[in-house]
Amino acid sequence: MSGLPTTLDAQSGARLEAYLHAHIPLVRAMQVRVAACDASGLTLAAPLAPNINHEGSAFGGSLAGLATLTGWGLVWLLLEPVHATHIVVSTSQIDYLRPVTDTLAAHCPWPGEAALDGFRKTLARRGKVRITLHVRMLQQQILCARFSGDFVAYHDSP
Amino acid sequence: MSGLPTTLDAQSGARLEAYLHAHIPLVRAMQVRVAACDASGLTLAAPLAPNINHEGSAFGGSLAGLATLTGWGLVWLLLEPVHATHIVVSTSQIDYLRPVTDTLAAHCPWPGEAALDGFRKTLARRGKVRITLHVRMLQQQILCARFSGDFVAYHDSP
Repeated sequence: MSGLPTTLDAQSGARLEAYLHAHIPLVRAMQVRVAACDASGLTLAAPLAPNINHEGSAFGGSLAGLATLTGWGLVWLLLEPVHATHIVVSTSQIDYLRPVTDTLAAHCPWPGEAALDGFRKTLARRGKVRITLHVRMLQQQILCARFSGDFVAYHDSP
Repeated sequence: MSGLPTTLDAQSGARLEAYLHAHIPLVRAMQVRVAACDASGLTLAAPLAPNINHEGSAFGGSLAGLATLTGWGLVWLLLEPVHATHIVVSTSQIDYLRPVTDTLAAHCPWPGEAALDGFRKTLARRGKVRITLHVRMLQQQILCARFSGDFVAYHDSP
């Protein structure tokens, strides 16, 4: 057993939110919170006011930042029981489809058992693993932005 | 004559910085400033402290946000004399190559007369134009992140 979780729950979401607020000042400035953390995946949200732009909609940098945090956060949740693991984003791409004019929300689905199994085995074997995650940002069921990012997790060298 | 500028100067850079600070709260939280605005292009910078992450380096969302602002800001400078023009980012891609451990700096080069000529003509003819811009983030002459983004400028419909 790798010790990695097989699903998410509200308690792990609360720990992620506390971790992000403790370590990343911009998360506090953006007022990011965990909106949902369950078997379907992770949803982060942030109010519009601190993330607004000159057009009265969400600033692109806030949308990109929130999507990045959502993918990063999902990997953090996958690895929470494992000590001395670093997680970094290595590349990402975002399409802005429609303006977000209310609460920002970004959802990253739980990657599924097959992907997770490969993730666990590669990390155990090589001490390093890359995973591609997709994040969708919706407002009233309408897709406003889609993000994909590669995240790398690695152990400290022995 | 389109009335668009043929180069940049420090005064236009100061106006951009004031505009960003007035309209985008996250720019204030990130403490973004115009570090250079001249014939070579636009450089935005931000101190590490408000943009730091859990690893003691720059938060990926701050890097993506600063790069987005730099491309957006360059288009704003191109269009500053033109009334009723909107500028939005439509898609972007960023590669994180090395951690940034000091001041964040993002440079977008002046696109050059040929690109600018096409930009002006398309905007005048169609009321809308798309431009792809490339932004590099360096620390002590070493490339730490590279960004490319498509920005769309358009006039209000008559």
